[in-house]
Amino acid sequence: MRRLAGTAAAAAALLLASPAYADGMIDNVNGITLDAEGKVVRFTGIVIDREGKVGKLLKRGDKRPRDKQLDWKRDGQGATLLPGMIDSHAHILPMGFAALSLDLSDTTSLAEAQAKIATYARENPARPWILGTGWNQERWGLGRFPTAAELDAAAGDKPVWLSRVDGHAGWANSAAMRAAGVTAGTAAPAGGRIEKAGSQPSGIFVDEAMMLVEKAVPAPLPRDRDNALMKAQQMLLANGVTTIADMGTSLDDWMALRRAGDTGQLRLRVLSYAAGTDVMQTIGGSGPTPWLYFDKLRLVGVKLWLDGALGSRGAALKAPYADAPGERGLQMLDETKLRNLISRASMDRYQIAGHAIGDAANAQLLGAIEELSGDFPGDLRWRIEHAQIIDPADIPRFARQGIIASMQPIHQTSDRTMAEARLGPDRLGGAYAWQSILRAGGRLAFGSDAPVETSNVFEGLYAAITRQGTDGQPAGGWHPAERLSREQALAAYTTGGAWAGFAEDRIGSLLPGHRADFILVDRDPLTVAPEALRQTKVSETWVGGYRQYPRDAAPAAATPAARRQ
Amino acid sequence: MRRLAGTAAAAAALLLASPAYADGMIDNVNGITLDAEGKVVRFTGIVIDREGKVGKLLKRGDKRPRDKQLDWKRDGQGATLLPGMIDSHAHILPMGFAALSLDLSDTTSLAEAQAKIATYARENPARPWILGTGWNQERWGLGRFPTAAELDAAAGDKPVWLSRVDGHAGWANSAAMRAAGVTAGTAAPAGGRIEKAGSQPSGIFVDEAMMLVEKAVPAPLPRDRDNALMKAQQMLLANGVTTIADMGTSLDDWMALRRAGDTGQLRLRVLSYAAGTDVMQTIGGSGPTPWLYFDKLRLVGVKLWLDGALGSRGAALKAPYADAPGERGLQMLDETKLRNLISRASMDRYQIAGHAIGDAANAQLLGAIEELSGDFPGDLRWRIEHAQIIDPADIPRFARQGIIASMQPIHQTSDRTMAEARLGPDRLGGAYAWQSILRAGGRLAFGSDAPVETSNVFEGLYAAITRQGTDGQPAGGWHPAERLSREQALAAYTTGGAWAGFAEDRIGSLLPGHRADFILVDRDPLTVAPEALRQTKVSETWVGGYRQYPRDAAPAAATPAARRQ
Repeated sequence: MRRLAGTAAAAAALLLASPAYADGMIDNVNGITLDAEGKVVRFTGIVIDREGKVGKLLKRGDKRPRDKQLDWKRDGQGATLLPGMIDSHAHILPMGFAALSLDLSDTTSLAEAQAKIATYARENPARPWILGTGWNQERWGLGRFPTAAELDAAAGDKPVWLSRVDGHAGWANSAAMRAAGVTAGTAAPAGGRIEKAGSQPSGIFVDEAMMLVEKAVPAPLPRDRDNALMKAQQMLLANGVTTIADMGTSLDDWMALRRAGDTGQLRLRVLSYAAGTDVMQTIGGSGPTPWLYFDKLRLVGVKLWLDGALGSRGAALKAPYADAPGERGLQMLDETKLRNLISRASMDRYQIAGHAIGDAANAQLLGAIEELSGDFPGDLRWRIEHAQIIDPADIPRFARQGIIASMQPIHQTSDRTMAEARLGPDRLGGAYAWQSILRAGGRLAFGSDAPVETSNVFEGLYAAITRQGTDGQPAGGWHPAERLSREQALAAYTTGGAWAGFAEDRIGSLLPGHRADFILVDRDPLTVAPEALRQTKVSETWVGGYRQYPRDAAPAAATPAARRQ
Repeated sequence: MRRLAGTAAAAAALLLASPAYADGMIDNVNGITLDAEGKVVRFTGIVIDREGKVGKLLKRGDKRPRDKQLDWKRDGQGATLLPGMIDSHAHILPMGFAALSLDLSDTTSLAEAQAKIATYARENPARPWILGTGWNQERWGLGRFPTAAELDAAAGDKPVWLSRVDGHAGWANSAAMRAAGVTAGTAAPAGGRIEKAGSQPSGIFVDEAMMLVEKAVPAPLPRDRDNALMKAQQMLLANGVTTIADMGTSLDDWMALRRAGDTGQLRLRVLSYAAGTDVMQTIGGSGPTPWLYFDKLRLVGVKLWLDGALGSRGAALKAPYADAPGERGLQMLDETKLRNLISRASMDRYQIAGHAIGDAANAQLLGAIEELSGDFPGDLRWRIEHAQIIDPADIPRFARQGIIASMQPIHQTSDRTMAEARLGPDRLGGAYAWQSILRAGGRLAFGSDAPVETSNVFEGLYAAITRQGTDGQPAGGWHPAERLSREQALAAYTTGGAWAGFAEDRIGSLLPGHRADFILVDRDPLTVAPEALRQTKVSETWVGGYRQYPRDAAPAAATPAARRQ
């Protein structure tokens, strides 16, 4: 019956060329979206057309479509309805791999860790290696590093490689060392250390010595990548993310995205930035791909790496590190190489997304953009990824070139004390300077950098409006002048992210004509207390007019599954 | 007006759920297609539905749809209409690269060749190297090899590398030798020779020494691959080929096919067989891809190489070569490796297409298939590519396992005298044994092996029914018992090719429900004299209900371009 009505309706729509024909509606919601100027638009009902786009937003008192004009109707029961969130900087395959690997961060003793390792090994017999992270011998109260033998006892002859909670040491069992060819005679490389038990390697490899084992870890198979992608997608949808900018897509990652798209399993949108210009060209040839799979996937541009990270003192600074006199970090690309890479991409209209964390790296990229933007006219939307530490004198340069600062609010709260140590008190004026960038006329797009940080957008929104950690520290917020309003923060996760990905005509807003990507949540992010905002629960996530989270085993009556793209 | 009628019609179709609604018609044709049993079906009109499929075949006297039921109508003016041809073994990117490189095979003097090289260099300034083929110093009457200096005179400082007509020697200029690091001190590898002019390399590299220069030739860029694909596609469509099985698709080839598909530029159908199991898995992951781009592209399986070629005595033979006592050719895969590769592919339902030319290689593959087919039940459609020299005792084995012999008729006429030399007179009973394979109950799929041979299907049909060269030799045909009937030959290029690619439900036949892939030609292949058949001219090629050759700059009235997929 519903189908027949729909068919007749479609026929009528064709005959009458009526563009406003309604297909489905969710009514009785606390609807919020932003327009292109960042102004809040509130509504109480949303009409979704047959293409999975927003047909109409209905305010209280607006006339609703009649039931017979609708294929389906849902009562939102007063839930808050927001645009689907756009995570403008994350790593989708690594997210999945991280989630599928063994996590020991909650273990409080070696015995507990051994039990967890044994269980994981038993439950994952097909994995050639057991990989994991999160162990911490100090938390275990062990007073020493664990040993290969203790790992052998838990996992037997299957190779195991587990990185310490800080990523600066790895724990291998005997099978892993054997596979890696590590023996008593193996020397540690510069910057690394092999712990010993007598004359033999004990199983612990520190810093650069970790590579001795890591090189033996087999590359994931295509089906492992498929699993990781499905896992990450599930996590993102559960967090209310409907679009992710995948920063540094490898060719293997891309193939996994295509397999998912080809088989109808890509359920969120991925804006892909290739890991370098070679991958970029191999995928796109002489330009970005078209939008694929009904706007689910597009190779938009290329990621370039200008420096390293602040924690490891790889971020390129204008002046030496406060806590490492004489060190200024790593400049990854010289001026010529940077210009060559930008030119190679921009001549074919690939978008540049340049990783720049330190003030010197940001200034270098700003300089190259200023120099080259005249050579490549038109709307190129230069992106600077992270843009964490900017010389305040350079902030106005973001506005002059219309540059997008693609930033991750949680990095600010995670990095706070470390950043203070690295830079000292006098060079923080342009650190995580969200409000200054906006005030100067720059653009913001917010993301998570998952799996480095959580992909929970509401944690990000909380950080953005408070500049406080989850512990509420520091009171009043860190450099509170850089806090954002709720509307500004929401824009950076929605309209700002869409703009940053050349997608503002289709996502980021729920104004009519945009893809019906939205989420239902249990509170109003514009009015609840900050701490409550952080604990927002996503109850449903819809992409292109289909509910993708939670996903029913059998399509619910309200889910027009027959039209699944 | 046409559009409005079409829209109303679609609406009516939806309302009435009428499946037979006609969209377009070509009437007044001499239509021929084969059914699944190989029986000829003749018709005079074809109705094409809105999905680009065959709606109906009309015989003389059948009632035609009324004009108002049609979006468009064409008078075929009595032309013969055949199913689009399926080339079951060719190499699409190499075809394009060959066509785009410099062809010196028509030059009759060194001076003429030099002039052609100079023109090509001038017209292709963006190419980093000039690559070409076809030169023959004997045809030029030169009495010696040409020199690097003579190439420098024509092309200057741009590297040039031209292979001789037989592929057994290459001619480099000074810039190419410089780029390759070839000096007076460079030693020729085993099996190769560097010609000298005094103590210096003269520019001519024979056999294995060709690699010294070839390794320096830059890999084609993605845009070069795109150009090659477009060129090959154009050639194939002009030859009436609407589907090609690409045998040995590299990952770079696949990316070019996807770029073409993504941008709507893939205008024929490609059944892809990956170049090895690694590429296969990288593309397909845990199984063949779905049909992509409205059945234009699918990764179906994997190509494996069991032996080499007959001409170079690489084909693996059961007994020594008649003209090289003691030599039996090359077995590329030992029994274990072959079974491992087959198992890895078959467990995920990838189709096996094994290159086997000599009788020993064919027997080896037959043995592996017989041993493993029980492990992988279901419809796997094992393919043997080339299947040129088969021990007559092995021919019944094709039928027992339902194996497809994927053969190239023109190889028979090209190879005839060479095959007689290699095998001697007594071992030709299973050589190019088309009719014996069919009679035993095996299946045939015909192809060209382009660019090794021409992709002209009518040359192939001529060879298949005559076993004579274009010179008519030998009179009566070579081993004429192996000639095919016209219907059998046509089946091998249509229904047989569709079966071989798991596509018999959609292509290869024009029975209703199949994709409307067809060609218009100037004569009836079932009735004209063999020599006339060979000279058949293709006037139009349609794929999925669209005319793709010739392609009008602006869509013709008869071409429903607005519906282009």
